[in-house]
Amino acid sequence: MMTFTPTGWSTEEKQIAEKVIQQTYQKEVALVINHVRQTVTNLTEIDELWQVHDFLSAKRYDLDGKYDARESMLVFTFAQLIKENLIELKDLDGLGKDKLAKISSLAKM
Amino acid sequence: MMTFTPTGWSTEEKQIAEKVIQQTYQKEVALVINHVRQTVTNLTEIDELWQVHDFLSAKRYDLDGKYDARESMLVFTFAQLIKENLIELKDLDGLGKDKLAKISSLAKM
Repeated sequence: MMTFTPTGWSTEEKQIAEKVIQQTYQKEVALVINHVRQTVTNLTEIDELWQVHDFLSAKRYDLDGKYDARESMLVFTFAQLIKENLIELKDLDGLGKDKLAKISSLAKM
Repeated sequence: MMTFTPTGWSTEEKQIAEKVIQQTYQKEVALVINHVRQTVTNLTEIDELWQVHDFLSAKRYDLDGKYDARESMLVFTFAQLIKENLIELKDLDGLGKDKLAKISSLAKM
């Protein structure tokens, strides 16, 4: 049985983690902005605009919680980003094998 | 002292009221869509997108209540639309003088 007792993150691992989180956040922000821009360009009905509003409400909540960079949460954060196809495991090259194994396992749950 | 006891609306007055409400609602919807479209076209930061989200939250609430077409509310509805420069008193030509006087008076409050 796999356990998730906290293990330390080295300075190098923390730098890798921070960089991936920043880059992926920026990538998702760009995706969200592009999606809204395209949708708003083409819509003509107010109900379509309220759908954009609903999308933004959900996405704001989602983005607010998803990029949790606390050390104890990093494996869960990365597992979620993999699940959503925002990153691949290889983007995390440089992390210890134990952490990669946890992340990979969590991403399949 | 001016009183606002309900007075009847003739069929013709109701038709005028309904038409003005529909047209003004469509006009404001178009203004909102254009505003969002322009804003979203030019933004680059997520905080700017959240400002659009806040704008839509407020506007959705606003539009939901503002176009109250219940007979007892019509003078208040039109007074508010005048206050917001969405209509002018002359757009209500055909309503009885008593109603126009009430609307005009309310619009100045």
